[in-house]
Amino acid sequence: MDERKIIKNLFVNLATNPGALNLDDDAAFLAADKNKDSIITQDTLISGVHFHSHDSPYNIAKKAIRVNVSDLIAKGATPYVYFLSIGIPKNINTHWLELFASGLKDDQEKYSISLLGGDTVSSPNDIHITINMVGLIPKNKMVRRSGANINDNLYVSGCIGDSALGLSILDDVSLASNLSAISKNYLIDSYYLPDPPIDMIRVINDFATSSMDVSDGLLGDIKLLIKSSSVSAKINLKKIPVSLPANELINNHTFLFQKAINAGDDYQVLFTVPVDKIKELESYCCSNNLIVTNIGSIIKTIGENELFDEFGKSMIDSKERFKHF
Amino acid sequence: MDERKIIKNLFVNLATNPGALNLDDDAAFLAADKNKDSIITQDTLISGVHFHSHDSPYNIAKKAIRVNVSDLIAKGATPYVYFLSIGIPKNINTHWLELFASGLKDDQEKYSISLLGGDTVSSPNDIHITINMVGLIPKNKMVRRSGANINDNLYVSGCIGDSALGLSILDDVSLASNLSAISKNYLIDSYYLPDPPIDMIRVINDFATSSMDVSDGLLGDIKLLIKSSSVSAKINLKKIPVSLPANELINNHTFLFQKAINAGDDYQVLFTVPVDKIKELESYCCSNNLIVTNIGSIIKTIGENELFDEFGKSMIDSKERFKHF
Repeated sequence: MDERKIIKNLFVNLATNPGALNLDDDAAFLAADKNKDSIITQDTLISGVHFHSHDSPYNIAKKAIRVNVSDLIAKGATPYVYFLSIGIPKNINTHWLELFASGLKDDQEKYSISLLGGDTVSSPNDIHITINMVGLIPKNKMVRRSGANINDNLYVSGCIGDSALGLSILDDVSLASNLSAISKNYLIDSYYLPDPPIDMIRVINDFATSSMDVSDGLLGDIKLLIKSSSVSAKINLKKIPVSLPANELINNHTFLFQKAINAGDDYQVLFTVPVDKIKELESYCCSNNLIVTNIGSIIKTIGENELFDEFGKSMIDSKERFKHF
Repeated sequence: MDERKIIKNLFVNLATNPGALNLDDDAAFLAADKNKDSIITQDTLISGVHFHSHDSPYNIAKKAIRVNVSDLIAKGATPYVYFLSIGIPKNINTHWLELFASGLKDDQEKYSISLLGGDTVSSPNDIHITINMVGLIPKNKMVRRSGANINDNLYVSGCIGDSALGLSILDDVSLASNLSAISKNYLIDSYYLPDPPIDMIRVINDFATSSMDVSDGLLGDIKLLIKSSSVSAKINLKKIPVSLPANELINNHTFLFQKAINAGDDYQVLFTVPVDKIKELESYCCSNNLIVTNIGSIIKTIGENELFDEFGKSMIDSKERFKHF
């Protein structure tokens, strides 16, 4: 393998934006646009931490793209271009890289994005992937975590817990012994490949007072949002949307519900909507086939920012939440 | 260690740009500016490849910043903000991270930049650092590699080879047995900590038709520049600027001259200047205490893009050039 050949054979055809300069210069170029702000996110995935080194390189590439796409959706920004750094150990061959590049290519088409630059280096042990992604948004329209107001209703997109339950099955396959193969595979696939709801960008822009992506477990992420917004919240645990396969698994092992709501790589959007916009939001989502669920509401904080369940009980931190250190 | 504590205690105070949102959101914000294009570069450093894991964390941080600053200088862009991803193995402690953050802080002041976002993750084995840096440049003013014209003169900033020779000494300390401690340390320090010539930005903007940073060896980088520009070049090897300590070492071991001009992490700027601007360029550099050296000129290509020495001999590729794979 040769650094320049990898770039020329696998990455240059992904760099379709003129600002990428065919990946043949020291830096890339992003033209000024007086009507659009840039929203930028950067996420790193490492083998042994975020994926297994034997996982499908096609899916690893897509996952690396999608964790960043998820952040941009949550800010109401449309993904535009990205930078890719990849650290490659000696045991990675050209075939692996071809599959990886093919995952990038398919997701570039899915999200209408392109590669703008990056770095390709050797790595002594692990596969390291860092993607920096630039999204565009109309001037001054970014939706922050900190905008939730008292009485706003709390919504979440899609289904919660599929990915966490998929990982639970991978860790202990006996959990799925009563599950159909279809349900089992659905959950495992959700773990390998998140599918952030790109069509939610319009919803976030038009209706949300605050928003964030659900990437480290729903309950913990709600706590981050209410802390940023200096408010509290009450939620109805029974309303948290769970897929049919997830529900089937939880019915067999009730302790897994805690996993679903505390440990998920969900890559859905958590957001708040003012009461007077709820009817319009729900009509819009219904017409556009977008699943959103009202799971609670924002309340005034007395003392600390707290999250209460439907019985008024304060919810403490869960050990299920993912921690790096 | 705790991911949020690391961010809160060490990184938030580096995130002084309002667009960083106190590192408390899913993504950062870069406001639209109709007069400025963004020039963006991304470089990754990995322990065992780009530095040793026992190197000073203060210097590692600065090196990670400076390899990106070097790319922006070469494009005539002024460094503005950066994103940092760091993968941290278990053997890294808080003291290491404090020193690392202190290196970032000092270089933020040196270059008037600030942290805009990024990711902090655990890494099973190696330290991985990826910096994505955004520079600003007046609209449509980026200087590319591909702009060199026939008869332009070829210039390089600073001194070439110090870093490569510093590394040679680290690999075989007996090479420096006739060198003064001051000379020896000067070369070794050049290897550990590049010092890209930030004041050259103005020169590149005002005088250069093409430009790139010298980061993988001078001769190979000249070949990349002439290839991008579809031209050839002739250079005078005797004119390549070499520091006093480097010259002292080369006088002791003449084979090291090839290392100096082929293997350097120089982080200087290589650029071309039209003949009618040379006088003005040299006056400007002289008045502003900027070292630039005319090392050759651009000539017409017959067949392939070739680099000739002062005797008209075509220069073949050197094995000294750094290759990742």
